[in-house]
Amino acid sequence: MIKEYIDNNRERFLNELFDLLRIPSISADSAYKEDVFKAANFIKDKLVAAGADKVELCETAGYPIVYGEKIIDPNLPTVLVYGHYDVQPATPLELWHTPPFEPTIRKTEIHPDGAIFARGACDDKGQVYMHVKAFELMMQTNSLPCNVKFMIEGEEEVGSSNLGKFCIENKARLKADVVLISDTSIIANDTPSIDSGLRGLSYVEVEVTGPNRDLHSGVYGGAVANPINILAKMIASMHDENNHITIPGFYDKVLELSATERGELNKAPFDLEAYKKDLEIEDVWGENGYNVLERTGIRPTLDCNGIWGGYTGEGSKTVLPSKAFAKISMRLVPNQNSHEITALFKKHFESIAPKGVKVEVKPHHGGEPVVTPIDSPAFIAASKAMETTYGKKPIPTRGGGSIPIVALFEKELGLKSVLMGFGLDSDALHSPNEHYGLFNYYKGIETIPYFFQNFAQLTK
Amino acid sequence: MIKEYIDNNRERFLNELFDLLRIPSISADSAYKEDVFKAANFIKDKLVAAGADKVELCETAGYPIVYGEKIIDPNLPTVLVYGHYDVQPATPLELWHTPPFEPTIRKTEIHPDGAIFARGACDDKGQVYMHVKAFELMMQTNSLPCNVKFMIEGEEEVGSSNLGKFCIENKARLKADVVLISDTSIIANDTPSIDSGLRGLSYVEVEVTGPNRDLHSGVYGGAVANPINILAKMIASMHDENNHITIPGFYDKVLELSATERGELNKAPFDLEAYKKDLEIEDVWGENGYNVLERTGIRPTLDCNGIWGGYTGEGSKTVLPSKAFAKISMRLVPNQNSHEITALFKKHFESIAPKGVKVEVKPHHGGEPVVTPIDSPAFIAASKAMETTYGKKPIPTRGGGSIPIVALFEKELGLKSVLMGFGLDSDALHSPNEHYGLFNYYKGIETIPYFFQNFAQLTK
Repeated sequence: MIKEYIDNNRERFLNELFDLLRIPSISADSAYKEDVFKAANFIKDKLVAAGADKVELCETAGYPIVYGEKIIDPNLPTVLVYGHYDVQPATPLELWHTPPFEPTIRKTEIHPDGAIFARGACDDKGQVYMHVKAFELMMQTNSLPCNVKFMIEGEEEVGSSNLGKFCIENKARLKADVVLISDTSIIANDTPSIDSGLRGLSYVEVEVTGPNRDLHSGVYGGAVANPINILAKMIASMHDENNHITIPGFYDKVLELSATERGELNKAPFDLEAYKKDLEIEDVWGENGYNVLERTGIRPTLDCNGIWGGYTGEGSKTVLPSKAFAKISMRLVPNQNSHEITALFKKHFESIAPKGVKVEVKPHHGGEPVVTPIDSPAFIAASKAMETTYGKKPIPTRGGGSIPIVALFEKELGLKSVLMGFGLDSDALHSPNEHYGLFNYYKGIETIPYFFQNFAQLTK
Repeated sequence: MIKEYIDNNRERFLNELFDLLRIPSISADSAYKEDVFKAANFIKDKLVAAGADKVELCETAGYPIVYGEKIIDPNLPTVLVYGHYDVQPATPLELWHTPPFEPTIRKTEIHPDGAIFARGACDDKGQVYMHVKAFELMMQTNSLPCNVKFMIEGEEEVGSSNLGKFCIENKARLKADVVLISDTSIIANDTPSIDSGLRGLSYVEVEVTGPNRDLHSGVYGGAVANPINILAKMIASMHDENNHITIPGFYDKVLELSATERGELNKAPFDLEAYKKDLEIEDVWGENGYNVLERTGIRPTLDCNGIWGGYTGEGSKTVLPSKAFAKISMRLVPNQNSHEITALFKKHFESIAPKGVKVEVKPHHGGEPVVTPIDSPAFIAASKAMETTYGKKPIPTRGGGSIPIVALFEKELGLKSVLMGFGLDSDALHSPNEHYGLFNYYKGIETIPYFFQNFAQLTK
């Protein structure tokens, strides 16, 4: 019945997603403000069309949260579906093979049936829209087995800064038994997996100021601190020779995994040669004493996400610039706290600045790390749903990315989340040529109704 | 007679320079190609109007060289005036108080009589145009005491790459007794000085490539070498804890000055507190064991002139970029060779790259360091000319900037240069709000005819 409905609506499901992907809802860039609202309205209209009640755009200090629900019986359990309709910036544009907001289907080695290339295809519009269509399917086939609520926000890519307040103010409305989120990945299309943990995030922007104006590097070079050189020195000093992060106190609260836990984690299939080949790198790189799965799953990191200063145009300019900047983010692991880490970073970064420069550290958004239980009814429901549709039991994994709201839901709503994602790490999330497999899109729509069935069953 | 002529033509001299400054002849950016040619034609027309013969735009593989001459008697000595009509890029535009190509006069603390604010005002259009007007003055007052040739190029700011070939191919035409260049500075408006040495330049662009595409820093961060972090580490390692440059062999050919020579150099007046106050820095910074005058005059340096990579827009993006870039220049001192230093840099930079990245080093232009004799007739002629117009004997100094063609003239034409510049280091050359004092402009026009008189006299 599920498969049949999907087959009969295959083309429409795709065309609707394409319409959503055409809206450049980049929340980080205020130039796209109108488009972000447009995407919110799109989700709202489609929820209404699929049969949801009480659908509305809930105003926040930033972009609105789309809410909708279908309560079939107050005594039945309720699934709260969370997702986001905003996307990452699409820069650098010149590296896209097709325009980021003109969805195009192309086949790839990993996606022989074709993948949808567009910003947000996987993160998270494609995955959110699976839920809207799975809901439509259950409504149309009269098979929704429990209540469902939707909370789709527009500020996930900029830190979900207004979602906490919304949750606090709407506790009753958001009452549910579990949060279901599809914003993560599986290991491979023939190796399903479910994230049981996510890293947190601390994100800062730093500004180093040397002289009060750009100088001629010939006249002043050698006698005046060059903010680019100083910034490079400061960034370099953030890792020691073992690639440990040098911020005092940074690791204090990190929970070390037991040998057994590390063993479990390393049961996930991982092919180092294929990993290196895919990225065209001669070798991986990271903290001594840990392998790739551990470095991305259970260890905190510090990465520069952007750097700029001085002359960056064509040709050469012998300038000793007044300022240099960097965007730096740290991925956090369970028990670390993003506010604490941001404060430790700021204190340390300011303390290592030499006398010839001034530094400023501006915190951007943060998010807390989480571990989700793998023995809860929701996790088991997800696991069984995937086993049904993939024919294989999914592997519990630790994701390296951050969905800060998972910790928030636990704190403000007292709800655990289940991270049933369908993307692939190689889908170029946050990168040029982001894509989402057609296989993954339809497989998600197929799996979600099984989750609802299993969850209703298990919590009866 | 000189003063009278200047007073009578004061306004016109300024208006003509303004017309030249309005042309955005940025040689580094091909978008301004037409304007660079326009500036060349402007100089050509003004040389013709001033009375020069055989004036023409000499084609090169790049921008043309403006040539003109006035031979009053083949038996008299010949002064070859060199300068450039191209300018540095004007970015960052938002830091200019008035548009860079709309010259504006404003008073400053250092220029109480007013200064001309415009890109190229001092470097080098203002200084080149003093020569055109001083030539006009000598022609109109019938006082040109020897022969003069003009060679004004349009590629000084991008390494004068076609000037060498031009010199070789035009040896006979360029035959002269000395090259006179006004493209340097004096210590202060009440402290004239003449550069007796200039640093050379080696300029490279580096590219560090990590993974073959931008990655999600959550999914891959910690396991894949981040090219920004790696580039920062590589740049940081270029200086040791004493701020010595760590490239093997870098200092091998540097001539250490004797105690006497260092003593002479340090006779130049220098106020460290005023220097720090002007730049609004708490402290100077540089190689241990040397003071500011030495660090900028007789020691080589390594400065980043630009850096970029990853996301540099508004807000945050959690990207682990594929590439990071920097523009790095080294100022060289006598006996160092720019080709050798560029090769040493390239070899070293490539050798320190960790396995997870690839690096590419692209050489930009270079230039050789020079020392000019201070006992030559030309230097004495310049010194006496300044003494006449400033009422003070100028101090011989070592300039930190580079005019690579000085070494080239020596090699290809067998000619020594005299660096009679009139700008100030604080005139914001290569920076936003570049300016040139009205005092300096007119003082230059006044001093040049005395140089010609003295030089004709001394070489009689």
